[in-house]
Amino acid sequence: MPSLFRLAIASVASLFSYDILPHYTQYESPGLAQHCANVPPISQAEFEGRQNSLATTLLQLGASAYITESGVNSQYFANFSLSDWKLSERPLLLIIAPVQNESGALPEVTILTPKFEHLRATGLPVPPFRGTKVRYVDWAEDEDPYQVAIQAIGRQSDSRNETIFVDSGIRKFIVDGLQQAAPGIRIASAPPEITSFRERKSKHELEIMKCANEATVLAIRMVHKNVRFGMRESQVRGMLASALSEVGLKNGGCLTLFGANIPLEHRQLWDIVRDVQEAALQAAKAGNLTRHPDEVARHEFRLRNLDQYFTHRLGHGIGIDGHERPYLRGRSNDVIRTGHTFSNEPGVYIEGKVGIRLEDCFYIDESGLPVYFTAGVGGPPDSPWST
Amino acid sequence: MPSLFRLAIASVASLFSYDILPHYTQYESPGLAQHCANVPPISQAEFEGRQNSLATTLLQLGASAYITESGVNSQYFANFSLSDWKLSERPLLLIIAPVQNESGALPEVTILTPKFEHLRATGLPVPPFRGTKVRYVDWAEDEDPYQVAIQAIGRQSDSRNETIFVDSGIRKFIVDGLQQAAPGIRIASAPPEITSFRERKSKHELEIMKCANEATVLAIRMVHKNVRFGMRESQVRGMLASALSEVGLKNGGCLTLFGANIPLEHRQLWDIVRDVQEAALQAAKAGNLTRHPDEVARHEFRLRNLDQYFTHRLGHGIGIDGHERPYLRGRSNDVIRTGHTFSNEPGVYIEGKVGIRLEDCFYIDESGLPVYFTAGVGGPPDSPWST
Repeated sequence: MPSLFRLAIASVASLFSYDILPHYTQYESPGLAQHCANVPPISQAEFEGRQNSLATTLLQLGASAYITESGVNSQYFANFSLSDWKLSERPLLLIIAPVQNESGALPEVTILTPKFEHLRATGLPVPPFRGTKVRYVDWAEDEDPYQVAIQAIGRQSDSRNETIFVDSGIRKFIVDGLQQAAPGIRIASAPPEITSFRERKSKHELEIMKCANEATVLAIRMVHKNVRFGMRESQVRGMLASALSEVGLKNGGCLTLFGANIPLEHRQLWDIVRDVQEAALQAAKAGNLTRHPDEVARHEFRLRNLDQYFTHRLGHGIGIDGHERPYLRGRSNDVIRTGHTFSNEPGVYIEGKVGIRLEDCFYIDESGLPVYFTAGVGGPPDSPWST
Repeated sequence: MPSLFRLAIASVASLFSYDILPHYTQYESPGLAQHCANVPPISQAEFEGRQNSLATTLLQLGASAYITESGVNSQYFANFSLSDWKLSERPLLLIIAPVQNESGALPEVTILTPKFEHLRATGLPVPPFRGTKVRYVDWAEDEDPYQVAIQAIGRQSDSRNETIFVDSGIRKFIVDGLQQAAPGIRIASAPPEITSFRERKSKHELEIMKCANEATVLAIRMVHKNVRFGMRESQVRGMLASALSEVGLKNGGCLTLFGANIPLEHRQLWDIVRDVQEAALQAAKAGNLTRHPDEVARHEFRLRNLDQYFTHRLGHGIGIDGHERPYLRGRSNDVIRTGHTFSNEPGVYIEGKVGIRLEDCFYIDESGLPVYFTAGVGGPPDSPWST
């Protein structure tokens, strides 16, 4: 293995950097383009299932509706995100309300759109629910969009003793507007009963994430084989971008950093971080609090007098959003559950000397145990240059 | 004038498009690179003035602090924006609190930062206040950032009968966090007394906007002279980008669209939109409600049976943000004041046939009258191909 590439490991975990080059080990590169061929995207039935679960939960909680702007939650429930609809001062809202029927609750899915943008809004890729297209409700420029929203869910300005749940990432002026339109309604951030839908991944969602993680590692291995002395960081970055797009991963980025060969002392530090990472993984079992793996990692570093250099939380949830709930951090009291997905990223950052972070993502399987997403292609390596 | 360029005017106001090529008329192109040379950026003294006004107003309103995330309001009060600090799930907050002294109120400026990002946060270009550097307060990963924020302004979890004002664009979970950290404190969106600071531009702010508007028109005229048959839209776009960067305007974009020559009927429509725009401008005098110019424009279109095709508000405030308060829209009850700045953008959009929008920005001068930002270089043209 060319030493210049080996050494990326040491320098990659630069201080205060978010993006980390994943680990790699040496494998025969398989047909990369085909790697995810058998993993279908989220289906219409799955979107229906998500909406249905939401409606049922809203009914159970006695809530009138769930409202979000364009973003990760609209992506989860209705297949459109910020890349489809940017935020502006004019609200476009996804409103999901439960309609009670004999067998339970059905979701009524409404898009509240600026009237003059109606045509563009109807181009959003919102899947129909059981063949029924999403309902579009327009607000004209001289109307109060929030009054229109309240009316759209069959409520009035004098409605009382009701709750509307909103995405907690929503902007305050949207909340203000809704509150003003119906002062008697409680507008509250969605509770754990709702946020847990997106947090706990389905088997299919886990398959998609496995595919993305495995393909990334395979792409790195393939590129790795083709790295030669004299290449620039930017060339290797380009090679990896090509490899990622070959397998169908969009917007794939890679932090490529070459550096001098690492001294033994740094290599030993790498091994320590690797050991800490393994200990943290084993502590991430279903039923444990999310603070526990973080505490274990911190304890392991403390035994080596390195805890002062581990300056951030152990990890974060990951899914549609790069960082999402729940978080593996001190004093957090969420409970680890089957279907949760986390980054496991201990690091030591000794200013002016060396920084090493190892970051690998894992999920909690059906038996409640943590499994790396890359387990199927060898998992994290045992050394910076293991093959 | 090459006819292909002439015709951009007709096709530029495409349906549902936000970005509009500004008008142009034929002038000798002056030394473009020098055009804004005498307009300095916002000075440290001006930032101090903004912070001071805020502190004084907070004291008058009996409020404990003003809080915003990175964005247009942090840009206004403390010289950093989303391009300096992106939003994440970890709050970085600008907190400005009034400190009473003999002569009134002084601002205490605090940046609440994730502890492990302290070094990066101290690189934010926040200007010192009277030589005193901004105060940085860290929250560690296992701390509640909102409790730290409440303590940073000398309050406790049991503080009562106080108000903290926040930027209304702030995310709801930030509000939730602050509210939970101090349930007795009222967390409310900043009232007009505070939002009016940014809405009503100073002489210097108006000078900067004049410079940007004039330079844009001059750049278009310069490019216009060099347009030749056979050029592509992308070439003209590139020429304009160069011209804009020559004068120091960053991220200058331009929607360049060529089309067939316009029939007389469309030309007449252009004249109507131009007349409506002029009538709307005259209605935008200090003391009038912001709805008034919108109503006048709509009335003028109605006289020509065209009001159904004017599907959006007349205009918006403009400044650090491309769209900002106050808005020229139906039923809005803000009052037009000296220092306000607006777009004036009537349009008719007849689906499948033709769309024409004219957009020019103006300000309200010291005598309360509306003046186009481009008045100094000829203002909006009288015809699509006037020179």
